[in-house]
Amino acid sequence: MSAFRVGLLGHGTVGGAFEQLLGERASAVAQLTGRTPELVGVLTRSRGDFDEILERSELIVELIGGVDPAHDYVRRALEAGRHVVTANKQLLSRHGEELWSLARERGVLLGFEAAVAGVIPVVRVLRESLAGAHVERIHGIVNGTTNFILTEMTRSGCDYADALAQAQRLGFAEADPSDDVGGADAAAKMAILARLAFGVPVHIDDVRCEGITAITSDDIAYAREFGLSLKLIGTAERLAEGISVRVHPAFLYGGHPLASVGGAFNAVTVESESITEITMSGPGAGGSQTASAVLGDVVAAIGGAQTLAAALDPLPVVEDEVSAYYLHMEVDDRPGVLAQVAQLLGDAGASIKSVVQQGVGGRAQLTMVTHPLERSRLAVALLAIEALENVRAAPRAISVINEEFV
Amino acid sequence: MSAFRVGLLGHGTVGGAFEQLLGERASAVAQLTGRTPELVGVLTRSRGDFDEILERSELIVELIGGVDPAHDYVRRALEAGRHVVTANKQLLSRHGEELWSLARERGVLLGFEAAVAGVIPVVRVLRESLAGAHVERIHGIVNGTTNFILTEMTRSGCDYADALAQAQRLGFAEADPSDDVGGADAAAKMAILARLAFGVPVHIDDVRCEGITAITSDDIAYAREFGLSLKLIGTAERLAEGISVRVHPAFLYGGHPLASVGGAFNAVTVESESITEITMSGPGAGGSQTASAVLGDVVAAIGGAQTLAAALDPLPVVEDEVSAYYLHMEVDDRPGVLAQVAQLLGDAGASIKSVVQQGVGGRAQLTMVTHPLERSRLAVALLAIEALENVRAAPRAISVINEEFV
Repeated sequence: MSAFRVGLLGHGTVGGAFEQLLGERASAVAQLTGRTPELVGVLTRSRGDFDEILERSELIVELIGGVDPAHDYVRRALEAGRHVVTANKQLLSRHGEELWSLARERGVLLGFEAAVAGVIPVVRVLRESLAGAHVERIHGIVNGTTNFILTEMTRSGCDYADALAQAQRLGFAEADPSDDVGGADAAAKMAILARLAFGVPVHIDDVRCEGITAITSDDIAYAREFGLSLKLIGTAERLAEGISVRVHPAFLYGGHPLASVGGAFNAVTVESESITEITMSGPGAGGSQTASAVLGDVVAAIGGAQTLAAALDPLPVVEDEVSAYYLHMEVDDRPGVLAQVAQLLGDAGASIKSVVQQGVGGRAQLTMVTHPLERSRLAVALLAIEALENVRAAPRAISVINEEFV
Repeated sequence: MSAFRVGLLGHGTVGGAFEQLLGERASAVAQLTGRTPELVGVLTRSRGDFDEILERSELIVELIGGVDPAHDYVRRALEAGRHVVTANKQLLSRHGEELWSLARERGVLLGFEAAVAGVIPVVRVLRESLAGAHVERIHGIVNGTTNFILTEMTRSGCDYADALAQAQRLGFAEADPSDDVGGADAAAKMAILARLAFGVPVHIDDVRCEGITAITSDDIAYAREFGLSLKLIGTAERLAEGISVRVHPAFLYGGHPLASVGGAFNAVTVESESITEITMSGPGAGGSQTASAVLGDVVAAIGGAQTLAAALDPLPVVEDEVSAYYLHMEVDDRPGVLAQVAQLLGDAGASIKSVVQQGVGGRAQLTMVTHPLERSRLAVALLAIEALENVRAAPRAISVINEEFV
């Protein structure tokens, strides 16, 4: 049985787990594909030579992360006619089109299942199973760190800083968590998912992004009265005028398939008329889970999987999407305040679905959920509300997804 | 752009939906694959000629269902070197190995994503994404009719007959529902999933099968006190001595990923050490959903997808698997009855996790959840319990899955 020669770039948590998994599963892969995958070289900062590894490999696994020098290595490997499997979301969300084109030209595979949603095979499902479907929308919880933090805040009522510290203690957040909690990690993944779902080029700069650092435990507690739970949601959707790709905190009603996804899990819901919807969930990226996704792509490369089809013409990125909103205002507990607020919302075209006002002393917490409206219209209303004499601070607004799941 | 010629056998709900979807998505498929799928003939009871359609087609879509004459048509199509895509679970769970071998010999694809779990791409995920993983267990809700009925019984407290009638009114159950409610439909699907997960031949006769017709609303109501919800669960698992594949009603704790899957949905959880677990959920087979799965396989065939690898040597089928159990007994409300029951369970090696006894007049409902034990040991204890003077009827036992999700 012939060997299939694999070169490995990077030997951190995922690289180490991949090396181990490859050893354990080599004979099973051989049985399946007729070729035994074999590691022929490992590049780390302190050992190995890229050119030498490239020379000896049929496939390069890139697990260095970051744009440089990974970009250069991946490009050179593809130019040399090698298959490449990568878990590098930042690289693909910035230079994906260049690299996928190169792979097409050379007739090799550029596999990236491990870049998107941990162990959930959403890349393969979108590329293959749903190749015949017209995908209308994707909602995803694609960052395990933020889902863990929000789950903790919901469960214990603690604030953001405490939940983050807890996540760091348990290894669910890094010492510098900014890429996760600020949403950049999720934004890169959503750019890749949008490319797959719609077939058009999507750059990470096309993704509007808001993290969870401003979320308070109050937001979570008040919204629970409406049956809402908070997640950091990535959305990619087709609209009449183009596409919208974005990451921001959003509330979900209890019936939504993503509402019950807790802890460091990832989950993605794909909606299309012909399939209605599919939801996939599983643990976010841990070492062995990511390694398993990488190995799946290696197996696909041995089996002769095809590279990604060329991108269609770009679609306009729509910035002013429609959503329902949860609103939270601190107001003076006086007659007429609710009427003033409702009037300003009505003027902007926002109709109110439900309201809860809770008074404490001379102040009141006014929370409500609106029916869907354009984001720009809401912004106008919020400015006007903030200017009211009896409103004590800028209103807080958080998206509410999919009213129909109530 | 060249045409890819598709022949269609069967033109019921799914066949009609497939014809429509193919028309709608032909140009998108062409863009993706370079070939435009085109229907060149349709066989129904009243029109079309199989040989003529075969002659003109590169791929045959079989949507007749049942073993005969579908078996003959599929075999002849493969022998003639045509790709075949089928949604026929009964055929594959009985004659799968013969047909997959034939496809391998002729170098064509036998696609069957639509045969297993509605719109959920579990076949592709098991065959490709998890090709490198060692799958230990699959739990599935793979029959939408029974899940709808159990969800209705749980929600409204109605009994089985009423929930079935409701399902029939809404189109979720057929006039003759026996294949669904008796578990044969789910058993066929689990045979196919077990073949994929473990790579060994599994025949529908290897699948132990129990339906939901004996379930009472009492079972559901009592078990709720333990935090349990009832599903018809298909299980395929590796055990030390072989494999166990079975379908039976089972209780799940609230934290289990399948516990929140309600209505006519399907869902499958795949467990493996390297991935921990993946859960996929979506609507059970409706016409357009099944058609979408069929089209996904057609696209795969155009793209040159590979056929299923040859089966490994069969593994022994283990009949005496280990499970926790929910037990329900009607007993006389007298001192000492619980002690007698507990003694007999203890003698058989069953330890009790939790107990609820509710007295009404001179009778009591005794319900409990055991820790896991072999099914044969439980059977011994149940016979002894039934023989007790103060026990009024045969005890009822229902599996409880995955204590650890409590």
